[in-house]
Amino acid sequence: MGEFELLARLRERLPPPGPRVRVGSGDDAAVTVPGGATATSVDALVDGVHFRRDTATLTQIGRKALAAALSDLAAMGAEAGEAYVAVGVPPDLDEEGCLELFDGVAALATATGTTLAGGDVSRTPVLSLAVTVVGHAATPERLVTRAGARPGDALVLTGEIGAAAAGLLLLERPELAASVDAATGAQLRRRQLDPTPRLAAGQALAAAGAGAMIDLSDGLGGDAAHLARASRAGVRIDAGALSLAAGVAEVAAAAGRDPLELAAAGGEDYELLAALAPERLPGALRTVAATGEGGLKQVGEVTAGEGVEIRRPGGEILAPAGFDQLG
Amino acid sequence: MGEFELLARLRERLPPPGPRVRVGSGDDAAVTVPGGATATSVDALVDGVHFRRDTATLTQIGRKALAAALSDLAAMGAEAGEAYVAVGVPPDLDEEGCLELFDGVAALATATGTTLAGGDVSRTPVLSLAVTVVGHAATPERLVTRAGARPGDALVLTGEIGAAAAGLLLLERPELAASVDAATGAQLRRRQLDPTPRLAAGQALAAAGAGAMIDLSDGLGGDAAHLARASRAGVRIDAGALSLAAGVAEVAAAAGRDPLELAAAGGEDYELLAALAPERLPGALRTVAATGEGGLKQVGEVTAGEGVEIRRPGGEILAPAGFDQLG
Repeated sequence: MGEFELLARLRERLPPPGPRVRVGSGDDAAVTVPGGATATSVDALVDGVHFRRDTATLTQIGRKALAAALSDLAAMGAEAGEAYVAVGVPPDLDEEGCLELFDGVAALATATGTTLAGGDVSRTPVLSLAVTVVGHAATPERLVTRAGARPGDALVLTGEIGAAAAGLLLLERPELAASVDAATGAQLRRRQLDPTPRLAAGQALAAAGAGAMIDLSDGLGGDAAHLARASRAGVRIDAGALSLAAGVAEVAAAAGRDPLELAAAGGEDYELLAALAPERLPGALRTVAATGEGGLKQVGEVTAGEGVEIRRPGGEILAPAGFDQLG
Repeated sequence: MGEFELLARLRERLPPPGPRVRVGSGDDAAVTVPGGATATSVDALVDGVHFRRDTATLTQIGRKALAAALSDLAAMGAEAGEAYVAVGVPPDLDEEGCLELFDGVAALATATGTTLAGGDVSRTPVLSLAVTVVGHAATPERLVTRAGARPGDALVLTGEIGAAAAGLLLLERPELAASVDAATGAQLRRRQLDPTPRLAAGQALAAAGAGAMIDLSDGLGGDAAHLARASRAGVRIDAGALSLAAGVAEVAAAAGRDPLELAAAGGEDYELLAALAPERLPGALRTVAATGEGGLKQVGEVTAGEGVEIRRPGGEILAPAGFDQLG
C-alpha cells in the first residue's frame, strides 16, 4: 500500500472537523479561522526513548503522543483546536498497525474536541510520531506562560503525582507488581501508558488568573525549575503537601526508591503546576474542582530567590536549587 | 549536552520573531495572533528516504526540510508565518552537527520571513525532521485549495521542471556529470539539494484569482492528478509547452531516460501548478513575472474528463489518465 492510499484510509476514519476548520486533511495545507490568539506546540515520541512497543499497544502509543502534545496546550490554558501528526512508520508496522496507531490518536482527538487537520507518513527505521497541536484563546493575554510567577504567589498543583513513574517501574520490573493489589497496579500502568491532558483544569486556572503555568512532563523538580527560571523567581515546595497517587509509596519501597523522590523526579504525570496571587486561590480551587480533573492543591509558594527547594515535613531538603539537572 | 542545553544554544541563534508572534520558542507553546485565516501543513524528511547525508550537507538538509514545508504554504497562496521543527538526532550527530543543521533551517526562515517559534529534539536511530509551518491570509477565501479547478480553466506552471530529478541522477551516478558542463551540473544538483519555495509566486497567483493550486513535490504527473481528482475534473497538458531546465535533456539522455518522462515523473521541483479562468491569465502572467520567481507559462487546460493526459508535440500520449500511480 502506498502513502496516498494509507492516508486516504486514515482520512476515512477522521472525526468531523471543528468549527474553526474550513479545509481539513487532504489538501496542501489545512485552512482554519482562528479566534483571537493561538498557542502552538510540537512534541515528538520515539520508540525505545519515549515508549516501548513491547509494553504499550499501538493504540496507547497514538493516544499518548497526542496527549503529551495537548498537555502543553493545557499548560497555556488554551482550548484544544487542531493537531497535525507526522508518523514515521518502521518496516515491521503494517497497514493494520498504522490504523490501530491512528485510532488511538483519533480517539483522544474526539474526546478532547481536537480536529486532526493534517499529517505526513514516512518510512523510518523505528516508530516515531511528531505531533503539532494548535490551541485557541480569545486574546493572547488569556494564555498563561511560564514567566509570570511573582514572589508571594501560591504554587498549586492539579491531581496526584508519581503514578506515571511508578507505572513505568511496574512495566520495566514486573516482579514489583506484588507490592500493590492488581487494580492499583493496573491504574499506575495506565497513568504511564495513557495519560490525560488537563485541558479543562488548565482553562480554569487561566480564567482564575494564574500568572504562570507548566505541565509536569519532565517531573515536578525539573518543571518547577523551568517555571522559576522563566519567571526569574524561586520556588519553595512543601513535600508534605504533595498528593502521591495510590500505590506509589508501595512500588517505590519495593524498588528501593524514596517515594517523594520518585514522585518529584519522575516525569510524565502531565499534571499542571501553576502560580497565582493568594487572593485568587479560593476561586481557582473551586473552578478546578468543578472540572472533575482531579482537584487542585496548594503545594508551596513563589519566592524572591532562585531555583527550586523541596522540603520534607521534617525540614530536610529533598531537592536543592538546580534540581532541574535531574529532569 | 542535554536537550535543554542544546535547545538553549539553538534559541540563541534564532532570527527575531515576526510581528504576529507574542511568545516564541521556549515556553510550553508559542503564542501568536493570526490574521483572518491560517494555512497549516506538516512535512517530514528522513535520512535515506528523502535525503542522504553523504550527498547533502547538514545545512542543506535543514534548508530543504523547511523549504519542502513552506512549498505547501506557497501552494495555498499563503504568506509564510511560523515554523515548528521536531528533529530526531541520531547517535553520530554531535552538537556542532545539530547547530549546522539548524543554521540551514534558520537561514531559509530569515530569507522567507518565517519565525522559528518552537521545536523538539529527540534521540532517534537516523536523522529526521518534521516541520510544521503556519501561513497567513486575510480571509480563508484568499487561500487556494486543490479543489477549485473548472473545465475550461487555463493550467499554468511556474519556472522550469526536471532539474531536481536530473540533479538526483547526477548525485546518484556521478559518471553522468560528463553530459553537461560543470556550471549546469552544479545548478541541477543545487535544485535537488536546495529547492526554493515559490512563496511570492503563490501569493501572486492567489491574488490573480487562481481557482486551484498545488506544488510539484511528487512530480507533475502525480500532482496534476491530485489537483484533478480534488476538483473532480480532468487535466490535459501539452508536453511541448513544458519548460525543461537547462541540462535536463542531456542528463536524461546520458542516463537512457526520456527527458519529458523524467521531468513529468520526477518530484521535488517545488514549482506551482495552478488553474485559473482564461480571462485571468494575462494578469497572472504579469504579476508572477514581477515576483522574479521564474515566470509563469500556460501548459494545458482543465477538462470535463478525469485524470491526467500529457500529450507530446507529435500527438503521442506521454502519460495516460491515472498517471498518479507513478507519483
